[in-house]
Amino acid sequence: MTSGGDCPGLNAALRAIVRRAKKDYGLSVIGFMRAWEGLLEGEFFEMDFRHVSGILPLGGTILHTTRKNLLERPGNMENVLARLDEIALDGLIIIGGDGTLHWAWQVHRRWPKVVFIPKTIDNDVWGTRYSIGFDTAVSVAVEALDRLHTTAESHDRVFVVDVMGRATGWIAIHAGIAGGADVIVIPEHPLREDEVLRIVDERRSRGKSFSIIIVAEGVHYVAMREKDNAASYLARKVESELGISARTVKLDYVLRGGTPTSYDRLLATRMGFTAVDFLVQGKFGKMTALRGTQIASVPIQRVVGRINRVDETLWAMARTFFG
Amino acid sequence: MTSGGDCPGLNAALRAIVRRAKKDYGLSVIGFMRAWEGLLEGEFFEMDFRHVSGILPLGGTILHTTRKNLLERPGNMENVLARLDEIALDGLIIIGGDGTLHWAWQVHRRWPKVVFIPKTIDNDVWGTRYSIGFDTAVSVAVEALDRLHTTAESHDRVFVVDVMGRATGWIAIHAGIAGGADVIVIPEHPLREDEVLRIVDERRSRGKSFSIIIVAEGVHYVAMREKDNAASYLARKVESELGISARTVKLDYVLRGGTPTSYDRLLATRMGFTAVDFLVQGKFGKMTALRGTQIASVPIQRVVGRINRVDETLWAMARTFFG
Amino acid sequence: MTSGGDCPGLNAALRAIVRRAKKDYGLSVIGFMRAWEGLLEGEFFEMDFRHVSGILPLGGTILHTTRKNLLERPGNMENVLARLDEIALDGLIIIGGDGTLHWAWQVHRRWPKVVFIPKTIDNDVWGTRYSIGFDTAVSVAVEALDRLHTTAESHDRVFVVDVMGRATGWIAIHAGIAGGADVIVIPEHPLREDEVLRIVDERRSRGKSFSIIIVAEGVHYVAMREKDNAASYLARKVESELGISARTVKLDYVLRGGTPTSYDRLLATRMGFTAVDFLVQGKFGKMTALRGTQIASVPIQRVVGRINRVDETLWAMARTFFG
Amino acid sequence: MTSGGDCPGLNAALRAIVRRAKKDYGLSVIGFMRAWEGLLEGEFFEMDFRHVSGILPLGGTILHTTRKNLLERPGNMENVLARLDEIALDGLIIIGGDGTLHWAWQVHRRWPKVVFIPKTIDNDVWGTRYSIGFDTAVSVAVEALDRLHTTAESHDRVFVVDVMGRATGWIAIHAGIAGGADVIVIPEHPLREDEVLRIVDERRSRGKSFSIIIVAEGVHYVAMREKDNAASYLARKVESELGISARTVKLDYVLRGGTPTSYDRLLATRMGFTAVDFLVQGKFGKMTALRGTQIASVPIQRVVGRINRVDETLWAMARTFFG
Repeated sequence: MTSGGDCPGLNAALRAIVRRAKKDYGLSVIGFMRAWEGLLEGEFFEMDFRHVSGILPLGGTILHTTRKNLLERPGNMENVLARLDEIALDGLIIIGGDGTLHWAWQVHRRWPKVVFIPKTIDNDVWGTRYSIGFDTAVSVAVEALDRLHTTAESHDRVFVVDVMGRATGWIAIHAGIAGGADVIVIPEHPLREDEVLRIVDERRSRGKSFSIIIVAEGVHYVAMREKDNAASYLARKVESELGISARTVKLDYVLRGGTPTSYDRLLATRMGFTAVDFLVQGKFGKMTALRGTQIASVPIQRVVGRINRVDETLWAMARTFFG
Repeated sequence: MTSGGDCPGLNAALRAIVRRAKKDYGLSVIGFMRAWEGLLEGEFFEMDFRHVSGILPLGGTILHTTRKNLLERPGNMENVLARLDEIALDGLIIIGGDGTLHWAWQVHRRWPKVVFIPKTIDNDVWGTRYSIGFDTAVSVAVEALDRLHTTAESHDRVFVVDVMGRATGWIAIHAGIAGGADVIVIPEHPLREDEVLRIVDERRSRGKSFSIIIVAEGVHYVAMREKDNAASYLARKVESELGISARTVKLDYVLRGGTPTSYDRLLATRMGFTAVDFLVQGKFGKMTALRGTQIASVPIQRVVGRINRVDETLWAMARTFFG
Repeated sequence: MTSGGDCPGLNAALRAIVRRAKKDYGLSVIGFMRAWEGLLEGEFFEMDFRHVSGILPLGGTILHTTRKNLLERPGNMENVLARLDEIALDGLIIIGGDGTLHWAWQVHRRWPKVVFIPKTIDNDVWGTRYSIGFDTAVSVAVEALDRLHTTAESHDRVFVVDVMGRATGWIAIHAGIAGGADVIVIPEHPLREDEVLRIVDERRSRGKSFSIIIVAEGVHYVAMREKDNAASYLARKVESELGISARTVKLDYVLRGGTPTSYDRLLATRMGFTAVDFLVQGKFGKMTALRGTQIASVPIQRVVGRINRVDETLWAMARTFFG
Repeated sequence: MTSGGDCPGLNAALRAIVRRAKKDYGLSVIGFMRAWEGLLEGEFFEMDFRHVSGILPLGGTILHTTRKNLLERPGNMENVLARLDEIALDGLIIIGGDGTLHWAWQVHRRWPKVVFIPKTIDNDVWGTRYSIGFDTAVSVAVEALDRLHTTAESHDRVFVVDVMGRATGWIAIHAGIAGGADVIVIPEHPLREDEVLRIVDERRSRGKSFSIIIVAEGVHYVAMREKDNAASYLARKVESELGISARTVKLDYVLRGGTPTSYDRLLATRMGFTAVDFLVQGKFGKMTALRGTQIASVPIQRVVGRINRVDETLWAMARTFFG
């Protein structure tokens, strides 16, 4: 099942699971529609090669997904466990993000046959270098930054770009470095507003009246008004304090849709492939994790409650490219 | 000079002007920075082949641009005319949109050596089938719609996409048809909100719980609240009346930046090339216009005060693809 | 049916035909697999909305296609006519290129209910400004030229790019202008090899040791060897006569596959839509044609045996950008 | 200096070097044109912030490059060493591939202040997980495979795609997995021709008359004719043995040009940044290497003469997706 927000690469993972399980191990694979909802309501089907033929480059998920936390509702956990026993699965592969992981763990404690595959454009799942969907999100954001650069320069204008990332600034820092942002503001290192303004001002004094500031949505400033987010707040400050024309641009849903990059297709394929191996080898309660060059196994229990934060080395480097 | 909002293709036009004027006619070409501002403040330079070498694929404009209506300010028109005489130009090619066109005409009435090239991602300049920048804007919008489709379908969700277009719905209708939108709302034919809801509801009754609605920013509904735009208003209605999860996505500045499509590069090249011919042939007071397969000349005077609206044939066709 | 080489936009046209015919006119639509082959072998099916749902952005054709000229074989024309009567169609929409057009006309003369939609990346069908697939082919070629430019410049090297176009140089001239080629060689105006070399040499004398030459496959030089095409011949000449490192790049099948540009999606949608109108209005023996801003009708008979050649205006302009 | 074939990301690395060296350490940076050639001929210049401003998204290298092995020629090594002393550099950062590495090591043995940054679209430099340029090359190849898929399917045809990779099959295997190839042939595991044909034939027996075969250029078959490469050979065999229409497509120079992916921009930035650190810390004779999540240092001496081959795990996985 695929659960939580969709992202590019889910279909690639589903294809890999079906190919590995059926072709190499002769297993039957059942797909649940809309995660727990399909399990509870009996909406599932046996997945065949033809279901996953041609889906590698497609965004979204053919199993659909939902953000509803069905397991929170009274009685649903019991119903899920009952259905799992009833269907007599040998194992359950759950593809999801941080929120899904919590419930995967709750289910696994009672029905210990769960394997987890991390997907999130935010890249905030602990224990894996990258999660499925992150590379594509960064790539789409960088394309947008490239486009904004020409306008910023032609108009001597400041763009403040708001990207996803509530607890962590992974998209902001990767896209910021790769897209040549002049300032990057992330929850792990929320630059003070006067630091941001100083950098923009120094650029102007060097003859560059345009700047691109990229801000993760999770950043907060004390003086923000009710309707503000950090991006709109900073844009207002640039205009009022520096007198430079500033605009905000919000990159949200376009980062999570559409065809995955080749990197995400390969990562998703490797994780789907390996998740089946875990299941066959009885490595339950594990998450597939990119560790260096290998897909390693990490106990779900160790991942629950933790957050993958931007590392200090990357942040230290990013600062060199400010201004 | 390039004036008004920037858009992809301006550099391609500048390159064509310099190549045609210098190489084929042996003329000197002077580029004014930030439109009238550069003229008034003496910021201009003789453009050589090397200035326009390699700029064909670049977005923005090497001459920079401004949205300030300098000519509105008292005394500036006189100063501009004085400077034009002083520099002793044989002609002035102005690349701009609707707003610039008005002032191009005012200048031409007093100093009758103006040739105009239309550029606007909104495609609202009358007299030419397409203006420079429009094809790229549509193309970027369609890429975004493709991305949103996969998320909409995977989440059984409605996206209401807000695109540029104050007076006209060109981007909305072209991108809507090419991007497979389920409803298109444009200022020329603002569907009533109950019509919009009915189409979304009918799709649901056919088992399609997701929809993409594209709305031009110029559309207004009577019941809209102060902070609303048409897109956010419709999204709220979809949620409250139909109980389907709905999100808005704003495509604004990314539509006007970045590398132009091959179509826009060719159109801009042809218009820049022909504008020089107009100037050499003494066809002053004219705008370059795409008419069928040719770049024709249209008197600026006829264009002023008019708006290029979406034609009825296109609208009639678009409706066939609703739902 | 779709016949001849595939190209981006065929599915968009099929979708438009089904939507227009079923939704607006209540007609049944039958799709023939692999053109005449499906008709002869009984491989066809009634097309429903769900067959064309989601196919707008997809390259290729869900009806498959073939390059086999089945109608040439003895007896097949009679069989086709017999089957057409048997199935009792009210009309037949054929989507194809130059070759298909000939046979569409032969069928129409005996069974006068044919409507034709032109598709060809070569853009050589007479009577329509553009055919379906051409804009995408140019767009993919320009992307490749953009990539080659950086390598050519970094290595002080000449690239000779071979693109499709046997009888006409449409792709070469559009992509060449939009992609900033330094020389364009097309069948309509095959520059002599010494002219080509002179341009490359003059660039070098201006300090530009790199050049991009784009050549349509239909160009021939007298001195070419057996295994040569014009591109490889010119590359060899650049090396032997000028002593500059030269490489050939062949852009062939990648130009005809994949997702169509927004321009091609709209053109294909308009042509599919209008072809149904022609059929309903009894306008048989006609081809849908882009004429200025409208989809007009052109008698197939007038188109047969003619070729759409690159117009002189475009060629004259292209020369300005050589060197 | 940048040496060997160009690839996307070189400019990103140069930018990072200049920013890190000048901004954070206050060092002067000298750029040599065309690698050793610029050093020998005195073509170099002090690189300032403005030289590297805006070059992050550009392919190629502003320092130009050459494939000439100047150091092979008698006397040149001595001249290089003399010039290095003369200029009194504190260190020399060389960005290059396998061939350059050899000479970097030869120079370092005599003038021990060299730091090396690996770049190669082939990814065959030992000691680093990925080299600069590889991710972009794979990404462009996958885009091409996506395009070819639609044509292959519509025409029931086999495409044999020839990609770069003389000693190793990195591009072929990554692009093949991510692009959904049906067979992948690499130098490390050159499938016998009968195995290739069997897979294609089995697909046909399952109703899939189209296939995509991707082949690294370094693969050889005993029965190949003089003018053959492995791709053309396999295509001929598919036609003669299986009677399925087959075409070859060569993806060569387009893989190494143009704007780098976000992944390559980040990798190049990190390597350029860290190379300066190595130099400042006196870590000479080292190569920057991607090791897990960090940029580590590897002695150049250990890398010389070795080749980074496709690992067995990846190959084992790839096989699951054949057919």
